[in-house]
Amino acid sequence: MNRRKALITAGGGGLAAILATHTGPALSQGRKEWRLQCAWPKNAPGLATGAIALSEFVNKATNGSLTIRLFSAGEITPPFQTLEAVANGTIQMGQGYSTYWAGQAPAMMFLGPLPFGLTSQEQMAWLYYGGGAELAAKVYEKLGVIMFPNGQTSVQSAGWFNKEINTLNDYKGLKMRVGGMGGRVLQALGGTPVAMPLGEVPQAMQSGAIDAVEFVGPMNDLGFGLHKVAKYYYWPGWLEPSGQYDCFVNPKAWETLSPAEKEIIRAGNVYASQLMLSELVAKNAAAWNQLVNTHKVQVRKFNDETLKGIGEIAWKVIDGEAQKDPLSKEVFNSIMKFRTEVLPYTNISELEFMRSRNLGFKYG
Amino acid sequence: MNRRKALITAGGGGLAAILATHTGPALSQGRKEWRLQCAWPKNAPGLATGAIALSEFVNKATNGSLTIRLFSAGEITPPFQTLEAVANGTIQMGQGYSTYWAGQAPAMMFLGPLPFGLTSQEQMAWLYYGGGAELAAKVYEKLGVIMFPNGQTSVQSAGWFNKEINTLNDYKGLKMRVGGMGGRVLQALGGTPVAMPLGEVPQAMQSGAIDAVEFVGPMNDLGFGLHKVAKYYYWPGWLEPSGQYDCFVNPKAWETLSPAEKEIIRAGNVYASQLMLSELVAKNAAAWNQLVNTHKVQVRKFNDETLKGIGEIAWKVIDGEAQKDPLSKEVFNSIMKFRTEVLPYTNISELEFMRSRNLGFKYG
Repeated sequence: MNRRKALITAGGGGLAAILATHTGPALSQGRKEWRLQCAWPKNAPGLATGAIALSEFVNKATNGSLTIRLFSAGEITPPFQTLEAVANGTIQMGQGYSTYWAGQAPAMMFLGPLPFGLTSQEQMAWLYYGGGAELAAKVYEKLGVIMFPNGQTSVQSAGWFNKEINTLNDYKGLKMRVGGMGGRVLQALGGTPVAMPLGEVPQAMQSGAIDAVEFVGPMNDLGFGLHKVAKYYYWPGWLEPSGQYDCFVNPKAWETLSPAEKEIIRAGNVYASQLMLSELVAKNAAAWNQLVNTHKVQVRKFNDETLKGIGEIAWKVIDGEAQKDPLSKEVFNSIMKFRTEVLPYTNISELEFMRSRNLGFKYG
Repeated sequence: MNRRKALITAGGGGLAAILATHTGPALSQGRKEWRLQCAWPKNAPGLATGAIALSEFVNKATNGSLTIRLFSAGEITPPFQTLEAVANGTIQMGQGYSTYWAGQAPAMMFLGPLPFGLTSQEQMAWLYYGGGAELAAKVYEKLGVIMFPNGQTSVQSAGWFNKEINTLNDYKGLKMRVGGMGGRVLQALGGTPVAMPLGEVPQAMQSGAIDAVEFVGPMNDLGFGLHKVAKYYYWPGWLEPSGQYDCFVNPKAWETLSPAEKEIIRAGNVYASQLMLSELVAKNAAAWNQLVNTHKVQVRKFNDETLKGIGEIAWKVIDGEAQKDPLSKEVFNSIMKFRTEVLPYTNISELEFMRSRNLGFKYG
């Protein structure tokens, strides 16, 4: 009873924690209990949504034959060792972000957002109907895990700046907390990408140790208080027009599952992806309005000439990186084939429609 | 063994057909077999994807405890009686399109696409994080069924025309096959909406009985051959920026399900929604390129002045319709609240990013 009470009052764990109480020795026959570590706190708004949705769904849909318990980064291994812990069987499942594993496989960078690449809607179309999910699985297989796409960020911000960017030249000497392909593009623009834990950002922005910082989008940026440490919020988000959350499973654990359980995890990740994107669209919009209307954030848009200049350089950087590694090249070629195919259609459908809503007629 | 072999080689029917064979008298104890009729052929490209994905998933995930068999419109009831057949228990489940049921509940019109309304990505954010799914369920409950959103069309075309639209005036006297709210807007613009089975459209376009026709988007339009009967393909798709596919269940049948089966159907519809949208994004893009490059279709864009004029009128028509019925008003108010909140954010994120990709720099 004490154990049960402790679990029920644990709070954040939600249904996963409650169901876990049913897996005492007497009940455990034929029931599997898995541990899923997130690469962030297990209740991190936006970030952990895919893990929460997936685990609650699996726990209900399998009627408890498979129970997934969530753990925060650090509870079992440090965040950036989550994938390794799944590969070596310490835990059965993990949830994170593709570019976190780029040190172990450069092609991960191409599964993540590419500057001026695909939107989240396009990225998901590539994953499910353009061969993307199979290619992603191939990259993760090299690191010893089975991968499922677990969510999308939607278009992210171009960052919070304490200096204005009016020409390409203004990027020269700029010190910015930014990783991934965006960091390499910044370097090519003459700036300096800085690796730094998010917790150190406020002081670094205040002291001028860095001039700019990129995190996710309005909801997460507001939650972390980035509007308090920077003057300007820059858009459009050429840096990271999407962002790939991932779910990965230990292959030996996978083989202990029934066909029904496998199907529930496979489809459960598509379900989680949809919820994650929808949540971010809704909550980013609310946070955006709060940032602009309540906190009076100064929004800045890059001018077209600057964007064009960044685009030229971004392409060279990305293409150059892709040529260094056969698997990166394979992923990149697939994405570029899809981008070339989808862009004319996105332009005439989504883009032209969105533009038409802003022609100034009364609506609402 | 023969039976097993027959099952394995059954081919085209997919898992639904294979599992269905397990439900003979000897095996049927504790197993439920449901019939799902689509409001179109059960293999209709794009349209039936949500029903196929859902049924195959349910059949696998429940390990056959619940088997859903697909039927085409007309196999059990005519297409537009599908919802009624589910409500009265003739069949357990149906899949269709919200506006098909507007004759029985005017609020259905507001669950479907609204001229200059929400994109599919926004619509799904409204459904899952803006109270939309609950409101939709409330509308369907009035007709005696439990409803789950089952997919989105993405931005649809504004139609195929044999006359050019260069000013608002050109809509005057235009006879167009178009239903739903778009038809009411056309009427307010001075045109005549015509109800006509799609099969009669080619001859009607040729004889001049109608001047224009609207169907879905490039994939379906190409499949039906609309490029052969019209001169101009008009965009942006102000008429139907999204489109709501639905899945509905008989409430008594629902109550025979276990909690796990209910959860599998609930989440399975979110899963199906994501796949449906992704398929349409990918295949509409491919079809668009084929229409433009192979079939040399003449694409026309409405000019801004015309779009602005249509927008003014569209708003008045939609708002007017909403005032006629309390439930319509409730749905409309919720959508408008969400649209007002999301629009500034979509503009700075999705729209500005999509625009930035077209600034003419070399990429690929």
